[in-house]
This record gives sequence, C-alpha cells and structure tokens, in this order.
Amino acid sequence: MTTPAYTLTVTVELENAPGALGRLTTAIGAAGGNIDSVDLSGHRDDVVVRDITVHCRSEAHGREVVAAAGSVAGVTVVSADDRTFALHRGGKITVEPKFPLRTREDLSMAYTPGVGRVSSAIAADVSLARKYTIKGNSVAVLTDGTAVLGLGNIGPEAAMPVMEGKAMLFKEFAGIDAYPICVRTSSVEELVMVAKAVAPGFGGINLEDIAAPACFEVETRLRAELDIPVFHDDQHGTAVVTLAALLNAAKVVGKPLGELKVVFLGMGAAGIACAKLLLDEGVGDIIGVDTHGVLHAGRTDLPPQKQWMVEHSNRGGVTGTLVDALRGADAFIGVSGPDLVKPEWLATMADDAIVFAMANPVPEIMPELVPGNVRIVATGRSDYPNQINNVLVFPGFFRGLLDAHAHTVDDQMKLAAAHALASLVSDTERSEEFIIASPFDRRVAPAVAAAVREAVAARR
Amino acid sequence: MTTPAYTLTVTVELENAPGALGRLTTAIGAAGGNIDSVDLSGHRDDVVVRDITVHCRSEAHGREVVAAAGSVAGVTVVSADDRTFALHRGGKITVEPKFPLRTREDLSMAYTPGVGRVSSAIAADVSLARKYTIKGNSVAVLTDGTAVLGLGNIGPEAAMPVMEGKAMLFKEFAGIDAYPICVRTSSVEELVMVAKAVAPGFGGINLEDIAAPACFEVETRLRAELDIPVFHDDQHGTAVVTLAALLNAAKVVGKPLGELKVVFLGMGAAGIACAKLLLDEGVGDIIGVDTHGVLHAGRTDLPPQKQWMVEHSNRGGVTGTLVDALRGADAFIGVSGPDLVKPEWLATMADDAIVFAMANPVPEIMPELVPGNVRIVATGRSDYPNQINNVLVFPGFFRGLLDAHAHTVDDQMKLAAAHALASLVSDTERSEEFIIASPFDRRVAPAVAAAVREAVAARR
Repeated sequence: MTTPAYTLTVTVELENAPGALGRLTTAIGAAGGNIDSVDLSGHRDDVVVRDITVHCRSEAHGREVVAAAGSVAGVTVVSADDRTFALHRGGKITVEPKFPLRTREDLSMAYTPGVGRVSSAIAADVSLARKYTIKGNSVAVLTDGTAVLGLGNIGPEAAMPVMEGKAMLFKEFAGIDAYPICVRTSSVEELVMVAKAVAPGFGGINLEDIAAPACFEVETRLRAELDIPVFHDDQHGTAVVTLAALLNAAKVVGKPLGELKVVFLGMGAAGIACAKLLLDEGVGDIIGVDTHGVLHAGRTDLPPQKQWMVEHSNRGGVTGTLVDALRGADAFIGVSGPDLVKPEWLATMADDAIVFAMANPVPEIMPELVPGNVRIVATGRSDYPNQINNVLVFPGFFRGLLDAHAHTVDDQMKLAAAHALASLVSDTERSEEFIIASPFDRRVAPAVAAAVREAVAARR
Repeated sequence: MTTPAYTLTVTVELENAPGALGRLTTAIGAAGGNIDSVDLSGHRDDVVVRDITVHCRSEAHGREVVAAAGSVAGVTVVSADDRTFALHRGGKITVEPKFPLRTREDLSMAYTPGVGRVSSAIAADVSLARKYTIKGNSVAVLTDGTAVLGLGNIGPEAAMPVMEGKAMLFKEFAGIDAYPICVRTSSVEELVMVAKAVAPGFGGINLEDIAAPACFEVETRLRAELDIPVFHDDQHGTAVVTLAALLNAAKVVGKPLGELKVVFLGMGAAGIACAKLLLDEGVGDIIGVDTHGVLHAGRTDLPPQKQWMVEHSNRGGVTGTLVDALRGADAFIGVSGPDLVKPEWLATMADDAIVFAMANPVPEIMPELVPGNVRIVATGRSDYPNQINNVLVFPGFFRGLLDAHAHTVDDQMKLAAAHALASLVSDTERSEEFIIASPFDRRVAPAVAAAVREAVAARR
C-alpha cells in the first residue's frame, strides 16, 4: 500500500510532443506509484519540466518508481526529492518573539533595564514566573533517545525529529509552547538530575521514548521531587486513549466494563500503564502476556512492575501463552509488535470480541484478517477506522495541567480525561467503526483540558 | 530622568467639560511625568475615558504621578498599568510549527510514520541532525541565575525574563532559534553535566549570567568536552564590543593601540575577558583594579584568573588604588558599578583620554561630568552617544558559528568579529560621538557573522 509518508516529488524533462506525459504516468502507475499531482514547473524550446508527486510504498519502492520514470522514451529525470525529508529540512519548529524589537524603547522594556524589574518581581515571588515568562505555557518534551518509536536506542540527536513533531502537535492542538530537550545521559540518576535542573523554566515535563524500566523510576522520582507535573506519554497518553476507546467499544458490544476479560500482549511501559488504568476504572480482569508468555504467580523472572501485575490481575490463574490467554476473552489489546497474532487465535475469543492492535506502523494483526467473532477492530493507523493515537490526549491533558497550575498528575486526572474523550462520540454516532474521535476533531483538546482542570481542582 | 522602562498607562475618566484634560496633563507634568501619548479609549454621557501613557523615573515616581493625576478635580483614575510588566505577561517568546498539521497526510509526514525515516537517517549519520532538525539553527541560552544583570543570585525562574529577552534578540537580529534553559544546580560539576546533557539538541550554547569564578571553569570544561561552540556572553560578547569601540576610539584620538595604557576598573569575568582580548590585539599595557586596588605582583589575595593578569599586564609595577592607576593613562574602561569614579581622578589622565564607563544602568561616571582632557566617552546606555552593548556581538557571532558548523570558539574569531564591527563606522563617520555602530544598524549581525565564518574556515 502506498502512503504519504513515502512521497517523492520527481522532477522530469519531457519532450514537448504529444503522448510523453501519458507514457510517463502510465509507467509510474505500472510500477505501483500512486500519482498525487502533476505540476508544470517550466519549459524551454523543446522540453517541458514537470513535478510529479508520487506516493510510494517504501524507500526501495520509490527507487523503482524513479527508475521506471527514467526508462520512458522522451523522459529525463532531473531529480527525485523525498517529500518527508524536504519537509524536515532545517527542522520543523521555530522560536519567535511575541513582538518586534525595532526601537531603543522596545529594547529598554523587553531587555535591559526594564527586564530587571520583572526579574526582581519574580525573585521576590517565584510564582510570578508563570505570569511573566513562557513557563506558564511551556512543556519540555524530554527524552534520552533510548526507545524512539519502534527504532530503539538511537540516541538524542536522532530523537530530535520525533520530539520536534511532538512540539508541533502541542502547539497545533493546544496552543502550548513545547521545546524538545534531547539529553545524553548515562544513568537514571543523571537523567533525573538533568530533568530536575531544567524544570524551573517549564510548566510541565512530557517524558517521551525512554526505555523501560528506567522510565518508571525516572517518572516516579521526578513526580516526588518536582513541583511541576511530569507525564510519561508512552505510558499515560496511551493508557488514557485506550481506556477511552474501550469505554465506547464496551458500550457498542453491550458488555459491562466490570465483566470484561481483557488480554494484553506487550507488558512494556505502555502495556502496564494501560492495564493499571483499566483496573482503576474497574475492568473485570486482565491477563498480561509478555515475550515469555502469560504473567502468573509461578513466573520467577518478573521485575517489580510485572510482579505488580501478577498480584492485581489474572484472577483465574491462567498459565501458558497468548493462545491460552485469548480463549474466551472479551478484548485483546496489543502494544507489542507487528504480525504477532493469528486469526485462528482470535477466533477462540468470546462473541462480539474487541481487538485493539496498536503496534505501529504495522499492527499485531491487520484489520482485514480478523475472524467473524471480532466485532470491533482498532489500530494506531490513520488509514483504518478507530485510530487510537496519543495525540488525542497529551495536548489537551497538558493544556489542562498548565491552566490549572497543576503540581502533579494523578490517576483521577487520567480517568477524567478518558471519560471526556470517550464522551465526544455521541450515543447516536457510536458504532463498530466509530469508537474514538478523530485527531482532527477540534473539540478533543478543549474537552480533555476541561476534564483535567476539574480533576486538578477537585484534588485541592 | 524619565525612561521608557518605567512607563505607565494611566486610564482616567475625565468630566466632559473644557479644561479637564489640560489640568490633568499639567498635573502630570508638574509631578515630573513625561507624557508619551494621550489616547481616547471611550466615552459615556458625561465622562471621557482616556489612556495617558507616561514615562516615569522609577516605580516610586510612577506612584507619585498616579497620585498627582488622581488629585485633579474632575479626574478619576481607573487603572495604572505598568507597560513593562504588561509586555512581559505570558512571556516574550513562542514556539511555532513551521507548517500546519491539518490533515492525516501532514501528520504522516511530520510525525509517525514518516518521521521515523528521518530519525533513522540521523541515527546512521549524526551530522544530519544539523540538516533535518532545529539543531542547525538553535542556541541554548543557558544560565544558573547566579549573576543576573546587576541583581546577583536571583535563581533560575527570575532569570527567565532576561534569557527570553536574549532569545528575542537572537531571532530579531540574526534569525537564530534560541531557547532559555534556566537551570537549578548546586555545583560547577552539576552545571557542566547538565549543559553537556542537553547539548545534542543545540548548535551552540550561550552561557549567560553565571557568577565568577564558576563561569570560567564551566566554560573551559564545556569547550573541552563538547563538539558545539560554547560562548560566555558576559565575558566574550563584552570583550568583542569593547575592543571594537576601542579600535575606533584610538583612531579618533590618533594614538596607536600598541602605545595605549588602559586602566580597568572591575576584574570580574567581563573585565578579565576584555583585558585578555585587548592584550591579544596588542594594546600597550593594562592596569587592572579590583575592589582591593591595583593588581600587582605584591598582592597575595589573587585567584588564578587575576594572577594571570598580574603576569601579563601592569608592566610598570604600579601599586595603590584606582587614583594611582589613572595617572597618565590613555583609556579607562569600567566594568564595575555605579558612580565609582570622580572627575578629578580622570583629570589626571593623559590628554585626549578615552573613558568607557560601562556599568549598567548607572555608569561609573555620568558623561556630563567628565573633565576636559577626556575626549571620548562611551557607556552601556542607549540615551547617550557611543552605546557599547553586547547585542552588537552575540547574534551575529552565533550566526557565523552556526553557518560554519563550528565546533568551538577561539580568540581569532573574537578578534575578527571586533574588527568587522569596528569597520562599520567609516573613516568619514568616525568621531568622538560615533565610535561604534548602532544596535539597530542592520549591517551589524551580517558583518560579524561573515568575519566569524571566515575565522572558522581559517582554523581548518
């Protein structure tokens, strides 16, 4: 399948003769390229220069498409630009002054000597930093680059494009000034120290793409030691959006949440955080499965977070593998890897089963492969219905935290956000193919923010 | 003297009768307020609402002006807003996406899955971070808040307005994306560790307002341990702009630089950095004076940086106080505090003496008080001729460093920047009242940047 993420803009010179463009577009189509647009970019005596924008399937497929274009008689390929890379050139965010500095008067108010009075006021009452500096509206998107997307430990520089993308989403969806802080550290201790050190300038910290188990300790310590909210999006953003989707899915299939048996595949940071929030909400039972099989009391290889799962779930004492866990289950939630689930395993689930196959970009099972007893399928992908994506949560969540001058994050805020998000799908709209709002639904961030603000207020 | 830094916008209700506005403006003027503008902001049956913008001398003076306005018959003061504080509300910078994220296609290129390919490319070749992320155009404005303006150790939150102001100047004058990193650390070791940790996302680090002697060690260690340029603006920005001004001042008075005897008052970070750069350039001799008097070989109380000064300056072995040092000197450079120099001391300097009284906002001596043998006076103030201000240096300097992908900063770059800056005052323009370009001369940053780029290239 072609995707906008692999789009090339192929610039070609065409002989100025009938049929050349037709032969070219036919060749690109035959090579599997999906033409998005054909633009005229110039012409000389006997050649026409055109920019052909083509969606491809992969980088390798892009090269095949370019080769196919170049082999057409009367066509010369001038260049082939990868649109994703072109979009990233120079980075994706900027820092801008809110007003120009054009005169000595501007300078004397925004900089010395005027700024000294504002600094003095904050020195006398540090809470004024939220009022008179960017702190009141800013979030650090902080990572050590150890678990970036599905790419693993690729380091802080390589994490930058992802964190800049996140900063864009913060602004676009919630008006928040977020800045990427991509750090090189060598221990949990150092990472905690750095996050604490930079905290004074920010109103909140969004931890991102930090490998387990370090992420648990880092977040726990920062929550204890800082007076601004700290939110590990891979855990809690995922948990909130998953719970929201499950609330609606359970309604569609008409099963009370308290009676649902839910199987998780993937007991990393995201899986455990999701499972915990679902248990908080009162889901019937959960069975967690990791790469070594079902989590149960007989396992002797479990770190503290998974041991916690054993103690709070799998009440039936199931052992074995995913296959054993799925038998009779009402819901499957995958936060693991591509193509790990077979249709025949899902066929052993209960009637009206719910499947959230959230591995990205390739889910645990493609939606078209699920058996007939599965009534609802959701993925992390934008090209299928029911996209479960953290972007539905973190912008609005932090908007609420910043507005409320929150000092921490708690489970009540997460539950409130999940319910607010779920409620955006109305009773009449709710269906097998519509259990969660679109990321482009402009009501999402304000609704989540309002729920979080109320939960912060209720805490006081 | 009134200043735009202490500007109030006083909103008043005036009886709608002849003479009310006249009485009000007269009263404000009598109280010493300097009226900038009078705007109509509304009216009802019998009252007119006006916004009077008034420059005052201080916060206390502002209160006097408001009281004077309120005492006028027929005038009711509705509010008095401090314009500097109003300007700072919500902070002075924003983080903005370079393009909107409005469709699934946008998201799939700027965020997942497209961003993963860019991250992978950087993981394979880390130098691509400069090309595809904000790193290539970004500077961390990093402080621990220990020596902010003349306010001292006011902490990282209170330093934020200054660092945001700096970030504005970086963008306004050199198109650089700078972000304030205001850190809370408890040792040089921690500060170095934090700066190193956050470095991957930035193309350079501008250290700012860090107290001596910590600033020396922090900079030295970061230069040794990082592969991006590190520049302590309080030291080197001040040094470059001071040398530029001195180059022109020496030409105006017709004295060769190699024969100048220069006295420094203030041997903090800025004073020592200036002195070192002047010695590098070949200034005749320097006598440094700190709070305990002249630096000479007999002093036993000197830390390493000042000991270095003793070994490289004061060749005549002068001892005593500032008074002894100034006798016969060609130039005085003050980087100390307000009103520390008496006119009669300057009267003992050589003919055609040069005085840079750079303490801010109140100089070592006000320009109107210097004796007749002083031919050139410069200050850090915008309301006198010859304003010596770091903003003439740091934006262009970092522009050059970023453009050249510099890995460090050296003295050749600083000397080149000083000469480029000095050369913007042409032979025909150069005079007692014009030894340095204006901060608003748009040629400044490009000229400094070009000189730095060349010096970086020459290093290779």
